[in-house]
Amino acid sequence: MLYQAIPPHYARIRDQLAADIAQGRFLAGQKLPPERDLAERFDCTRVTLRQALQQLETEGLIYRENRRGWYLSPPRIDYDPTRLVSFMDYVRRQGREPLTELLSAERRRAGAWLAARMGLPSPDEPVFRLHRRRLIDGRPVLVEINTLLASWCPDLLDARLDRSLTTVLRERFGKVQTRCTLNLRLGTVNDDQAELLQLASGASNLVLERLNYAEDGLLVEFDQEFWRPDAVSVAVQADFPSRPL
Amino acid sequence: MLYQAIPPHYARIRDQLAADIAQGRFLAGQKLPPERDLAERFDCTRVTLRQALQQLETEGLIYRENRRGWYLSPPRIDYDPTRLVSFMDYVRRQGREPLTELLSAERRRAGAWLAARMGLPSPDEPVFRLHRRRLIDGRPVLVEINTLLASWCPDLLDARLDRSLTTVLRERFGKVQTRCTLNLRLGTVNDDQAELLQLASGASNLVLERLNYAEDGLLVEFDQEFWRPDAVSVAVQADFPSRPL
Repeated sequence: MLYQAIPPHYARIRDQLAADIAQGRFLAGQKLPPERDLAERFDCTRVTLRQALQQLETEGLIYRENRRGWYLSPPRIDYDPTRLVSFMDYVRRQGREPLTELLSAERRRAGAWLAARMGLPSPDEPVFRLHRRRLIDGRPVLVEINTLLASWCPDLLDARLDRSLTTVLRERFGKVQTRCTLNLRLGTVNDDQAELLQLASGASNLVLERLNYAEDGLLVEFDQEFWRPDAVSVAVQADFPSRPL
Repeated sequence: MLYQAIPPHYARIRDQLAADIAQGRFLAGQKLPPERDLAERFDCTRVTLRQALQQLETEGLIYRENRRGWYLSPPRIDYDPTRLVSFMDYVRRQGREPLTELLSAERRRAGAWLAARMGLPSPDEPVFRLHRRRLIDGRPVLVEINTLLASWCPDLLDARLDRSLTTVLRERFGKVQTRCTLNLRLGTVNDDQAELLQLASGASNLVLERLNYAEDGLLVEFDQEFWRPDAVSVAVQADFPSRPL
């Protein structure tokens, strides 16, 4: 069962636009010419042009903003969630400017849902819940909710929490996390997240949930990250075991 | 800077609906009652109800279909892309029925884009390009494009390719991949993928790109996976190095 893989015309337009972008003809955040003008330039139908643009969107090179047009994407941040490197560090290492805002910090009872998710003995277990927003070059990219066992780091709320939590735990409390399990999926922003990330209500986001374990194997943190989807590229390296599983 | 974290009413409705789902009150794929009826049952406004439903959508429990209503999600497949386990195996192990369809298979020159992506010495390097669709319980969930160095597995197109490529490479050609680098991001389906995955044009997908290396360190495959976003949950485990990076 064979059929034609890529329509040549649309592929040619995609390649030409990608070359324009690579050569710096457009700048990050800049609006592309209207579709009408582009279709004229490439002497093609709007349907064909749209296919080429959607291909570039899939590749993360451009994005649509509220149907007002196509814009050149700022470079995505490479993020390896399997490594214990803080947001502040990996963003700076990529030559970008990170910022963390603390939205709320509270001590509360875990409640039924969280107790089940974290395998806590009781929904009355006290936890700290931090709600933070993170920005890159002034653009909001991430809303994060960290929930930590209060018994593991009792004085956490006394620390400055608008910086790396990993650093706070290590430097102020001598606590280190040694292992995590990650879960990554596509979700939908709720209204709160939409406002904080400047997305339309109902837009997609990338949801990363992580369970972090301490040195003695105790599950001590449940971390939920809600990413603006065009801001991040999750990059992971893996060695396969020498025998297939 | 503190503000109220979760509106209690919307959280209570979310919890009640989640409990209904957990208790099997709705079945996978089944439509939920209309929003009007639900708002009446919970004695709340449509806005509050919508917040609770969006929260459940974010958690992956329900999904919207073409604005015709809310449906209970089939369970997502857990997928660990860092392990060398084939689609056919990990789907079966989760008690589901996998199917692989070969859409096209061809030998071609790599071309400029792929040569750059794979670090090939020349765009004329011959590669095999497999275009496949994968289904779970009869529902299309994944479109995959595998591009392999033809010089690494010269007779690949003679093999049956509607099954695990890992198995074909190992059993028929004695070839094993030992390491990969993964890249995961949210993308937008192109029209071809939309049709193959039964998604609306312009819908989001989860794009996983993988570079696979052979035993001698040679990069031998570029794998692109375009997932129906509500079908999969990417699950990865990681140990942190004993010293933070």
